[in-house]
Amino acid sequence: MPQSPIRKLVPFAEAAKNKGITVYHLNIGQPDIETPKAVLDAVRHSDFKILEYSHSAGNESYRKKLVEYYSRVGIQLTPEQIIVTTGASEAILFGFLSCFDIGDEIIIPEPFYANYHAFAVSTGVNVVPVTSGIETGYALPSMEEIEKKITSRTRAILICNPSNPTGYVYTQEEMEQLRTLILRHNLYLFSDEAYREFCYEQKHFSAMYLKDVEENIILIDSISKRYSACGGRIGAFITKNTTVLDTIMKFAQARLSPPSFAQIAGEAAADLPEDYFNVTKAEYKKRRDLIVKRLSAIKGVVCTNPGGAFYVMAKLPIDDCDNFCKWLLKDFSYNNQTVMLAPATGFYETKGLGKQEVRLAYVLNCDAINAAMDCLEKALEQYPGSV
Amino acid sequence: MPQSPIRKLVPFAEAAKNKGITVYHLNIGQPDIETPKAVLDAVRHSDFKILEYSHSAGNESYRKKLVEYYSRVGIQLTPEQIIVTTGASEAILFGFLSCFDIGDEIIIPEPFYANYHAFAVSTGVNVVPVTSGIETGYALPSMEEIEKKITSRTRAILICNPSNPTGYVYTQEEMEQLRTLILRHNLYLFSDEAYREFCYEQKHFSAMYLKDVEENIILIDSISKRYSACGGRIGAFITKNTTVLDTIMKFAQARLSPPSFAQIAGEAAADLPEDYFNVTKAEYKKRRDLIVKRLSAIKGVVCTNPGGAFYVMAKLPIDDCDNFCKWLLKDFSYNNQTVMLAPATGFYETKGLGKQEVRLAYVLNCDAINAAMDCLEKALEQYPGSV
Repeated sequence: MPQSPIRKLVPFAEAAKNKGITVYHLNIGQPDIETPKAVLDAVRHSDFKILEYSHSAGNESYRKKLVEYYSRVGIQLTPEQIIVTTGASEAILFGFLSCFDIGDEIIIPEPFYANYHAFAVSTGVNVVPVTSGIETGYALPSMEEIEKKITSRTRAILICNPSNPTGYVYTQEEMEQLRTLILRHNLYLFSDEAYREFCYEQKHFSAMYLKDVEENIILIDSISKRYSACGGRIGAFITKNTTVLDTIMKFAQARLSPPSFAQIAGEAAADLPEDYFNVTKAEYKKRRDLIVKRLSAIKGVVCTNPGGAFYVMAKLPIDDCDNFCKWLLKDFSYNNQTVMLAPATGFYETKGLGKQEVRLAYVLNCDAINAAMDCLEKALEQYPGSV
Repeated sequence: MPQSPIRKLVPFAEAAKNKGITVYHLNIGQPDIETPKAVLDAVRHSDFKILEYSHSAGNESYRKKLVEYYSRVGIQLTPEQIIVTTGASEAILFGFLSCFDIGDEIIIPEPFYANYHAFAVSTGVNVVPVTSGIETGYALPSMEEIEKKITSRTRAILICNPSNPTGYVYTQEEMEQLRTLILRHNLYLFSDEAYREFCYEQKHFSAMYLKDVEENIILIDSISKRYSACGGRIGAFITKNTTVLDTIMKFAQARLSPPSFAQIAGEAAADLPEDYFNVTKAEYKKRRDLIVKRLSAIKGVVCTNPGGAFYVMAKLPIDDCDNFCKWLLKDFSYNNQTVMLAPATGFYETKGLGKQEVRLAYVLNCDAINAAMDCLEKALEQYPGSV
């Protein structure tokens, strides 16, 4: 089991803070945006007497509310097609346990969310990467390239849309290409859509929109980012494939139930006015525009203009991002401030890739982003491994 | 992956309820005892603005409170030796993932909590049962019998103390025997002590009390039963073995954090006055005394007088407990009431064992227990498969 590529830097961040240095955390997807008051109040105003197990699939009342939410984004479901999980993390774990045997393969476009690898290791599944690059904005690799990776052990393709770490939003055309592939080779398509509501220009095209391929589609979801409710640990595993649902339920029953308090929060969140997303999205878009502008203005830095989520990948004029990110915390400060970034090597399965890239999460307000970019600009001037 | 042996009866219980029949749920460990108000109020009076990820090991403030709780029960720990998990379920899963390779073996005295099997299946670990019987009150099998089961792949022994499903409380002598075994064969001892506070006569002897064997001991714990807080999904993985802790942390980081709301509840629970357990324990003891008296008075029924937890196993004069438990829900009622029990076959790894046994959870008040026992008495008179 590999160590989390981001969290291994935590001790250096703690040491910097102990020296009195302000650390801007652009390394992790923990937004500074407040959880909607109505969502927290639903928990605070609850009046039950016993904190009981919920249904293993989650409270029916919550699943019914989720049906309404999904209907609003054009996805028609029944409550039985939704299994509430302890974060998207558990949904991924259950999916791998249910759909794969040990030694099976899953194709994932890299760079990808590092914990997919962790859940694959946990379940004995082999991740087969197909590389996307900054020069195409991390678009989906060609059908031919993906097809070259398919073997007799391939069971699924996994995408994150919009993508963590790249912010890329898959087009309808790309989604249709994936549909062709999974039909041709009888694969599952796992689609992690935790960032669905944060698309800044194009409309999100869900894997659930694909026609006549219902048995193959697995939707992974989470309230963590959507409502700034990361600590609730509420996600969902969604499919119309009843065989998969039956198997998932066995794993869901073994762990008894998802957390009860945060299901109340999730239920309230599904009732938030549409305006909530407009306001939140506008804030993230403002931050994206700022961070992209600032990054692009730094000499030698290349970055994309990500269409969704709240991440941007940047290619820096450095020798090694792991060294650089550690150096930022250990040896650098500017006006007694520094910035914590996520080295991109942790997002690539292929060894040696991503050494010049970092991921920046624009989860802090514009003042903090400006201060962090000031630090980054100075740091690149001073870093001994600049190239 | 097997289906939960208890939960597969749920549709029959639902059908009975739809017919207007009252079902007494002695089948599952969901107490009717109220969650302490102070515990729920701690969550309701919280005033944070963002429902953030906690530390992957759990909030430090909560782990410090747990250190105080464990100190009061004679277990000396540091916060770093405690990893807060999403229920004891996740602690077991993490333990199996961290301590075992695929194909490794774990010895568990049967009958045992059915979900241990589920987590073993999830992680590719083989459960090797060693059988205990109702005639000894489900005491620990002899050293010789356990030792016969040890192979080159054996990595651990797992006990639940007090035991779910038997209510058996392991004696200090038995614990010392386990110590000898794990030292001799270099095994881990997993000790699930979720029911620690519910011992009715003898004092609980924790695996953490064993001397000079710190590297081998893994404590699994949970607030679910202790504080009637099952829906919180807060447990703990505890060990003094730093190598194991380092590995567990990787899995903990991959799933980001345990639920935030219920950690607040857990922290408040650790501050409850000692009197809370006295009152709760007295209530469970009263129920145990009643259910044992009622069971013993039914012709042909054999039961133990369990020393802890809130379960009792009973051997019934029936052909097949799975049929009987289904029949109780499907074909029987008395005064428009019936009882739901857990067939013991689900608690035995060895096929064919437990066919005449059931587990009864005395999680309902004395009136409900009396009514349920009236049902059981009548049912055994009418059941076509009575022997």
